[in-house]
Amino acid sequence: MASLGPVSRVRALLFDVFGTVVDWRGTIATEVNGLFSARGHSVDGTAFADAWRAQYQPAMETVRSGARGFVKLDVLHRENLDTVIRSFGLADVLDAAELDDLNRVWHRLQPWSDAVPGLVRLKPRYILGTLSNGHISLMVNMAKHGGLPWDVILGAEVAQAYKPQAEAYLRSAAALDLPPDACMLVAAHNSDLVAARQVGYRTAFIRRPTEHGPNQTVDLEPTDDWDLVADSFIDLARALDV
Amino acid sequence: MASLGPVSRVRALLFDVFGTVVDWRGTIATEVNGLFSARGHSVDGTAFADAWRAQYQPAMETVRSGARGFVKLDVLHRENLDTVIRSFGLADVLDAAELDDLNRVWHRLQPWSDAVPGLVRLKPRYILGTLSNGHISLMVNMAKHGGLPWDVILGAEVAQAYKPQAEAYLRSAAALDLPPDACMLVAAHNSDLVAARQVGYRTAFIRRPTEHGPNQTVDLEPTDDWDLVADSFIDLARALDV
Repeated sequence: MASLGPVSRVRALLFDVFGTVVDWRGTIATEVNGLFSARGHSVDGTAFADAWRAQYQPAMETVRSGARGFVKLDVLHRENLDTVIRSFGLADVLDAAELDDLNRVWHRLQPWSDAVPGLVRLKPRYILGTLSNGHISLMVNMAKHGGLPWDVILGAEVAQAYKPQAEAYLRSAAALDLPPDACMLVAAHNSDLVAARQVGYRTAFIRRPTEHGPNQTVDLEPTDDWDLVADSFIDLARALDV
Repeated sequence: MASLGPVSRVRALLFDVFGTVVDWRGTIATEVNGLFSARGHSVDGTAFADAWRAQYQPAMETVRSGARGFVKLDVLHRENLDTVIRSFGLADVLDAAELDDLNRVWHRLQPWSDAVPGLVRLKPRYILGTLSNGHISLMVNMAKHGGLPWDVILGAEVAQAYKPQAEAYLRSAAALDLPPDACMLVAAHNSDLVAARQVGYRTAFIRRPTEHGPNQTVDLEPTDDWDLVADSFIDLARALDV
């Protein structure tokens, strides 16, 4: 590569996590299928995962709007799980401890196959951090589970603000004492990159065309002229000349 | 080892850093000697390091007492550097950018020789975190510089409180969603362990008999019945049966 241009100032790569680093849909579907079939119930695990994830943005909106104070994502996921499990007619199958354990499936999400090798390759050159709406314990447990070599956990809990609020990006950069243009958000979601660019971040779009399954219609392609576009974290490393 | 007893519940090892993980005195002395001798000034680097460190607790006390709001340690170190450099008669030798760079020597402190191999051995079994009064960027830069394999940066900035205030320990455990007795503070300073035990932490004392140089008189031995006592991080791993 001749020149990295504006990207050459980047010191920290900050990653969206759900969908960009890990396969939430596939992991949840597999775990839900196994859990309920062991109890004699047949459940469409991918429909369950989709229904759970569909509650995600509305739940965070109650915090973003100020209707409630900041709470960790585990709290929102747990409330949403109650809703979803009722809608699937499975409210009486699991006891409270089992529900809490199922709620922590978000701590056990599997990385996409390129994620760990790509991060390992990027780590000597860049500060690698999470900029997720997931909280600290979720990110740490997921990293131990999947071998994700983060240098620092940033994002919603550190910033006390949920993306795409500007504070989530700005306070994460400030925690590293870096100006926004020394940070690059890596994400599979165009809307996340829009918000990051608005506050001065550099941007990298990663194609994750099966995040939502084989019939995915959103975020298949970049919708803006992001600084980088890549098909995997290995491809991202190559684009960054690492 | 027959049984780890109460230590068997520990999931996270949280480390004091300055003196316990890294050799602040040796690193600063070497850098100060080199910096000033290159400009024709002979300075006692270890005396300079000791004088700078002597300002550390009084500066944090202004925050702990509530006299000023929480500020990152870089800010306190920079104010203290002005004081120390004047007392050494060197106020006019460095310009502002050079002073800022010298202030960041705290981001470049060298690990004790056993620190990285010990942490690498402990990492598969435990969550490894910093519980330092150093802030996030300092800890991240130091880890990149020295190869320290932290899972998470906790401590003063995340807790918005300086040790030995109880909040520094309690909010760090809460960030991991762990009860205090699932956390062990690893420190070379008895006073730090006293405060951690008071809020329910498990405790490990590490002997660092040359932190303050060859004539050290403090913290040579444990002053309480800490859960573990070790001579190095390798020795700590052995005591934890790793």
